[in-house]
Amino acid sequence: MAIQGEVATGGNDSSANGALCLHSYWRSSAAYRVRIGLNLKGLKYDIAPVHLVRGGGEQHAPAFAALNPQELVPVLQHGQRMLRQSLAILEYLDEMWPQPPLLPATARERARVRALAQVVACDIHPLNNLRVLQYLERDWGVPQPERDVWVRHWIEGGFRALEALLTDSASTGEFCEGHQPTIADCCLVPQVYNARRFGVDMAAYPLIERIERHCLTLPAFDAARPERQPDAPG
Amino acid sequence: MAIQGEVATGGNDSSANGALCLHSYWRSSAAYRVRIGLNLKGLKYDIAPVHLVRGGGEQHAPAFAALNPQELVPVLQHGQRMLRQSLAILEYLDEMWPQPPLLPATARERARVRALAQVVACDIHPLNNLRVLQYLERDWGVPQPERDVWVRHWIEGGFRALEALLTDSASTGEFCEGHQPTIADCCLVPQVYNARRFGVDMAAYPLIERIERHCLTLPAFDAARPERQPDAPG
Repeated sequence: MAIQGEVATGGNDSSANGALCLHSYWRSSAAYRVRIGLNLKGLKYDIAPVHLVRGGGEQHAPAFAALNPQELVPVLQHGQRMLRQSLAILEYLDEMWPQPPLLPATARERARVRALAQVVACDIHPLNNLRVLQYLERDWGVPQPERDVWVRHWIEGGFRALEALLTDSASTGEFCEGHQPTIADCCLVPQVYNARRFGVDMAAYPLIERIERHCLTLPAFDAARPERQPDAPG
Repeated sequence: MAIQGEVATGGNDSSANGALCLHSYWRSSAAYRVRIGLNLKGLKYDIAPVHLVRGGGEQHAPAFAALNPQELVPVLQHGQRMLRQSLAILEYLDEMWPQPPLLPATARERARVRALAQVVACDIHPLNNLRVLQYLERDWGVPQPERDVWVRHWIEGGFRALEALLTDSASTGEFCEGHQPTIADCCLVPQVYNARRFGVDMAAYPLIERIERHCLTLPAFDAARPERQPDAPG
């Protein structure tokens, strides 16, 4: 499936370097980050859906494990190249197709943006991943309500810190950093989606919510939403 | 405490941009990553120890929470700048002091190195952090042996994938990528330290172990070891 994204404004052409194919799952927030990045760059890409639940999870099938021994999505195929880990993929997109940039101009600003992204990608999301919730359920028999408390605990702690970091900085604008979307926004928006899914009260994080709302007015973010994906349930 | 590191070989001079001070804990593997990076760059820096256990954890004191609302180490102070998140800090060091580089030359190689680093920093370490083990103990009463099984589970899964990624690539050399240390090695070595601490059988990961052994022959890695830190127990 080819997604149009922001081709008109981005003006990047990936054809010289081989086709792009994203191994994705509609509700994976790590895949959602990369979809936003691809769309912001105006790149055309195919989506190869990997169903993370059906039949025990297609990510564990030998064919997919050969692409990524971590047995996790996303994987971005670029010609013969196999790119793994969502933040590494976003940096790769930014290096290969510099316009529009996903990182700001100075080392100080880039450090801030990367740190904001990593609050989500290192300290919130990995604790609430499907594989972790499956471990809690299957190995320890933790019932659903307690698993949901666990998920909310890590989101709320991370969001408290994020809200403080965003509030305390003059760099925060319509987006996490200034007035252009960056990899921080690519991480933030999917995490807010997850937060709502698990019943986090977003009223406690007005700045996060304001930035998320603004991001979703952009077609690049909107087209990346889980419910807009070809593998989303009808 | 000023640490000499690799000043002689690195030849970087941070004085023009303000002093460097790392808020660190001897056994924090995220702080350990940054110590390696600072040493590889040959930068002089002070260490401000933050005791993560004593008195409920100094990272939760208002003075430290003001530096980092996540209440986590490391924080790198560079003059008036406050830098958070170990991977973001390593990228900052590489941008501010480019020699010797912590990332390889091409976008493809950099994507591989960042992905290897993130296998550790996103998918292994965050699950085994002190705050997670404290949650399991205090909120759920999970006893020590089961917490140790949990820790080993995530390390072993991550190391299986890392070993495969390292084995399957012609890029792997004495280090994770070729013959120069990168941010992937900065993440790998502290994670192996953690693995041993929790009783992971490293014989299953010969390539990881070989790279770790080689890294630790370098003064920059050796000086960053937990037991060499000013706040390590005597």
